[in-house]
Amino acid sequence: MASSTSSCKVVLASSIAKALTNQVRDEIASLPRPPHLHGFLANQDPAARMYADWTAKTCKEHGVEFTLREFDREDLEDGLQNANHDDSIDGMIVYYPVFDSRRDQTLQWTVSMYKDVEGLSPQLISNMYQNIRFLDVPTNTQKSLLPCTPLAIVKILEHLQIYNTFLDYGKRLFGKRITVINRSEVVGRPLAALLANDGAEVYSVDVTGVQQFSRGSGLKKQKHESRELEGWTLEQCLPLSEVVISGVPGDKFKVPTYLIREGAVCINFSTEKNFTPDVKDKASIFVPAIGKMTIVVLIRNLIQLARAHDARRERESRSL
Amino acid sequence: MASSTSSCKVVLASSIAKALTNQVRDEIASLPRPPHLHGFLANQDPAARMYADWTAKTCKEHGVEFTLREFDREDLEDGLQNANHDDSIDGMIVYYPVFDSRRDQTLQWTVSMYKDVEGLSPQLISNMYQNIRFLDVPTNTQKSLLPCTPLAIVKILEHLQIYNTFLDYGKRLFGKRITVINRSEVVGRPLAALLANDGAEVYSVDVTGVQQFSRGSGLKKQKHESRELEGWTLEQCLPLSEVVISGVPGDKFKVPTYLIREGAVCINFSTEKNFTPDVKDKASIFVPAIGKMTIVVLIRNLIQLARAHDARRERESRSL
Repeated sequence: MASSTSSCKVVLASSIAKALTNQVRDEIASLPRPPHLHGFLANQDPAARMYADWTAKTCKEHGVEFTLREFDREDLEDGLQNANHDDSIDGMIVYYPVFDSRRDQTLQWTVSMYKDVEGLSPQLISNMYQNIRFLDVPTNTQKSLLPCTPLAIVKILEHLQIYNTFLDYGKRLFGKRITVINRSEVVGRPLAALLANDGAEVYSVDVTGVQQFSRGSGLKKQKHESRELEGWTLEQCLPLSEVVISGVPGDKFKVPTYLIREGAVCINFSTEKNFTPDVKDKASIFVPAIGKMTIVVLIRNLIQLARAHDARRERESRSL
Repeated sequence: MASSTSSCKVVLASSIAKALTNQVRDEIASLPRPPHLHGFLANQDPAARMYADWTAKTCKEHGVEFTLREFDREDLEDGLQNANHDDSIDGMIVYYPVFDSRRDQTLQWTVSMYKDVEGLSPQLISNMYQNIRFLDVPTNTQKSLLPCTPLAIVKILEHLQIYNTFLDYGKRLFGKRITVINRSEVVGRPLAALLANDGAEVYSVDVTGVQQFSRGSGLKKQKHESRELEGWTLEQCLPLSEVVISGVPGDKFKVPTYLIREGAVCINFSTEKNFTPDVKDKASIFVPAIGKMTIVVLIRNLIQLARAHDARRERESRSL
């Protein structure tokens, strides 16, 4: 897919998603029953309804049962609470914004972490930052789910073999230096933390400056720590980084190509184009958008929830 | 195998060789007949005889026929010439030193490149530097063999997933910076050229200074070029390099650990220890020696020669 004159491979998220989709289909086929996802729609936003329709379509393609439920927004919290206790439901997704205010967060907190396909429950988020990977430490059978967008980027990095599977699980980015441009609470900061917990040295960049996320020399720390790199800008980070991940909203910002190192892997997760076309003269791999991966990763999360759900029911029936 | 307090994986060449050995055994089993290697011994050096015995043992283990032939050194050149034309022989190995002078090189030049398991024929060496990978361009069915020690190191890097198989063949080290300490004609310089031809930026270091081997920005050049990096020392190379490969003879030289970057992959191909034990506090992977790989790679070369030999005979019999 690289142009004839450049050594850069341009990789579309759809082609990466395809590989994961096949894996996800096989896993669903091996389950005793199709997993069941409920979508909760409580607004008139056409974008939210479109996303709901898209979920329905993708679920059908993957052999997942999907039920869309519409609520008056004042009734949604009760609806979620009931769904938490409904044994026929494996996973839940809420189409935000609902109130389009801080109140939406309390809705997020209502969804049980055992059914939260989006990985946004406070306990899951906290586990992610703390580098706690299982809900049932030390038995370690049930993974603590990760939020979909950062997880989609991790899966892309795995596919591109930036994760070195020769190294031990949890340390497979050891030796990699990664710049993440965007430090939002939704994607940028969790992503930086995830990558650092996997062993990378991460330079997390936003308009306020650069922070280093790292487990320290020899990965001696169990989880990442972050510290301000005083006076640092992209000028310092980019020439060091084998991987550059950018997600700046708006069309003003462009990653300065001349600072990117030869053979770097560049990934854009903004809806805008953060990289200019000449990135292909420098990068070894360029992923221009990641959208298609996010939904596959959501279904992957659903499978894990369905498995854990079955295991929980089996334990309960045995203990009766 | 890492010590409990460090994140470094210490990887023995024997464990890497084991994986390759299985692959080699399967390939030999799939051949119409066992390949036949002739060893040529023409000196009284006990080390040479030990190496010959070791070849015999390894060949037996892999299902390869091995014949050791002893010569007076003055008769060796004729012996090699005859073997070149002997259809029952697939590969040849000469146990050097024979004359222990420049004259040994003319022996090397006598061995046909179609039977040279060690990959030391002038045409093969030239192809390697020129990044010409096949003997029959553009048909590309018969690989131009590589010399055993550099090839053993390439195979180690493949095993450690430093070669990224997501990238196209011939560009799988794009984006990697590698320091090679030793620029001998036997190993260091061919190795630096090989790695640069595969896409790496290589810093080739010896007592005279540092040379950069590289295919240039975006790998636009078909093969590597080298240039002096004026004023550079290990001080400049090591902090940049994801991979450090050292093969300095003697016990005086040690790679300064404090200059090695966090999470680097460190490989020693000297018979002495070029790295100090504290390398494990910095490196993600440390390979302390490579000897065990060299012989397996030699047998792998033999298989390729045997295959090409059969194909040649078939072509000849068809054209009769």
